[in-house]
Amino acid sequence: MTSARKILKLGKPFEMRRGGTLQDVEIAYETWGDLALRADNAILIFTGLSPSAHAASSTEDPSPGWWEDMIGPGRPIDTQRFFVICVNSLGSPFGSTSPASINPATRKPYRLTFPVVTVEDIARGGYEVATALGVKKLASVVGASLGGISVLAYCAQFPDSTRSVISISAGARSMPFSIALRSLQREIIRRDPDWQDGNYEHDTIPVTGMRLARKLGMITYRSAKEWAQRFGRERANAERRPGDPFGIDFEVESYLENHAAKFTGQFDPNCYLYISRAMDLFDLADHGGSVAEALRRFTVEKALVMGVETDLLFPIEQQQELADGLSLDGREVQFARLPSIQGHDAFLVDMDRFRPVVGDFLKGLDRAK
Amino acid sequence: MTSARKILKLGKPFEMRRGGTLQDVEIAYETWGDLALRADNAILIFTGLSPSAHAASSTEDPSPGWWEDMIGPGRPIDTQRFFVICVNSLGSPFGSTSPASINPATRKPYRLTFPVVTVEDIARGGYEVATALGVKKLASVVGASLGGISVLAYCAQFPDSTRSVISISAGARSMPFSIALRSLQREIIRRDPDWQDGNYEHDTIPVTGMRLARKLGMITYRSAKEWAQRFGRERANAERRPGDPFGIDFEVESYLENHAAKFTGQFDPNCYLYISRAMDLFDLADHGGSVAEALRRFTVEKALVMGVETDLLFPIEQQQELADGLSLDGREVQFARLPSIQGHDAFLVDMDRFRPVVGDFLKGLDRAK
Repeated sequence: MTSARKILKLGKPFEMRRGGTLQDVEIAYETWGDLALRADNAILIFTGLSPSAHAASSTEDPSPGWWEDMIGPGRPIDTQRFFVICVNSLGSPFGSTSPASINPATRKPYRLTFPVVTVEDIARGGYEVATALGVKKLASVVGASLGGISVLAYCAQFPDSTRSVISISAGARSMPFSIALRSLQREIIRRDPDWQDGNYEHDTIPVTGMRLARKLGMITYRSAKEWAQRFGRERANAERRPGDPFGIDFEVESYLENHAAKFTGQFDPNCYLYISRAMDLFDLADHGGSVAEALRRFTVEKALVMGVETDLLFPIEQQQELADGLSLDGREVQFARLPSIQGHDAFLVDMDRFRPVVGDFLKGLDRAK
Repeated sequence: MTSARKILKLGKPFEMRRGGTLQDVEIAYETWGDLALRADNAILIFTGLSPSAHAASSTEDPSPGWWEDMIGPGRPIDTQRFFVICVNSLGSPFGSTSPASINPATRKPYRLTFPVVTVEDIARGGYEVATALGVKKLASVVGASLGGISVLAYCAQFPDSTRSVISISAGARSMPFSIALRSLQREIIRRDPDWQDGNYEHDTIPVTGMRLARKLGMITYRSAKEWAQRFGRERANAERRPGDPFGIDFEVESYLENHAAKFTGQFDPNCYLYISRAMDLFDLADHGGSVAEALRRFTVEKALVMGVETDLLFPIEQQQELADGLSLDGREVQFARLPSIQGHDAFLVDMDRFRPVVGDFLKGLDRAK
């Protein structure tokens, strides 16, 4: 399989926000379209917790990307007009330096010796890639979920580095309900004896912990309303193991089982723990004393905030908070409150609602001033 | 410690709804107040998933019960007027026959040889106790959560056995979102190697699985809104274990840890699995072909349906469905839609909202007609 993945090798030490320095940092990314001569047509995309930089297909890698319907020629993020970059988050195992990487100093995987990863570090990974590609100021920085938080961290850390921002299903900070859910997911993995305090080998990863954590994620990424419509109380066809009174009865259980099994093995468990915790730790108020002040300091001309009414992890009130905080004189702010029933994951599924809003916003972006 | 617990020993075999027959069934219960000569002042209470029959203190057992503020002299369920019975669910380990009991045929604990427990079986346990105490027709049957479902199963199975019903934070059936959450809780327990396919000994129960399942329960019993107010992003004081990047950071994590630790060891894991699954399996539509028809067949004169707007497990729409289905000519139905922010567990916490509604409803009950 060919890959469109490119790697930026940072020639300088990478100081982590919460302490620690990484040497020889690499950031994986993909690009689509061409950078204009004036370098004023670049869009930087950050990802959610689990995807790679492969957001869309390309000649080098024709396999569909995780946001295939959003990015491409004539699509909302139009690669005939924009030079689109998607980065793999620092700490994620799909090409960027992460807990699964070899520490050049010890020639062993970092595992839990990896420094604490913050969303600010992830945002800086994207900034370094854009800069290395010759982009001084982005046309827009775009992301959903963790990607949306990364976008906020980008704007907070690098003023004058983007003309606009699109934040989707994100929030200024994680609230205790979602912190508790992610904390429990991490504990489920850490309590799997196969985790071995992070020292598992590639062929004996904590599969059970990852499967259970993934199921919990899937339950909270969607909404009760969607599942009621989709599954109701339909019974599963799965064979019951004789003498097992707790096997699968309902279609919803069978669905979770099949999807969790697919995920396991794709994502390194230690990387999952690090990035999950980064989401808990992020607080936009760290950049100015309060969320309102942090948003006031953003230097963007235009902003699009999108949220979904059924989102359990970043409730719609948190999207409203971002939109309100960004609304200042001289800034054009659009708030799209979507009635999707697909919850937090709607940006991956309910494309008919998301596409036109993103497309219209980007069409309205002037070429550089 | 003295106990107010009494035991009904059933002199006949107990045919379980989904197959299997239990011999020598025992149902634990407590009572408060005195039965009137005409036996027309009895209230039967079913419990949620985890409590015992000790709903309130008494002379024999002065320790506070799980619904202490609701039951007693001058309280909403007034023991000066009513003879109040609370039963421990069949399948629960607090005195009633359960998977933790000794099978008289083998002289070993039933464990997973126990037949499937349904909410209908639990309701019948209560019916047998009331009957044995000389009650032919209850003044009211009352329950919240699993107790509320048991109340519906009682009315569906035993027509003309109660004059009124109070259903709190229940529903006609479990929807896939709550089924998925309970299924995951059960799997977390079953994947704990100490579960040993149900054959653990008393001193080596699957503590980790029970702790994690309890945390998941606690997250879903409350609401995101309450936790945001209560914990915000407050940091925990707990000492971090050096070299553990995934310990407790936030107060909400510390709260979950402390409460889950308390629960573990109190509840037999196999019993938990059986009762949890009973909640998934219950469907009021089994009693008449549809939920509407089942509710139409209820023979009560008065009904009170109470629900909470922030309930994640039995959303308020499910309470509305019950109230609507019960509303027929000649029946007095009251629907109390409470704006509590404590979610599913509000009936244990937000007593100032629940007490007056329950009290007024029971005050309005005439003595037998």
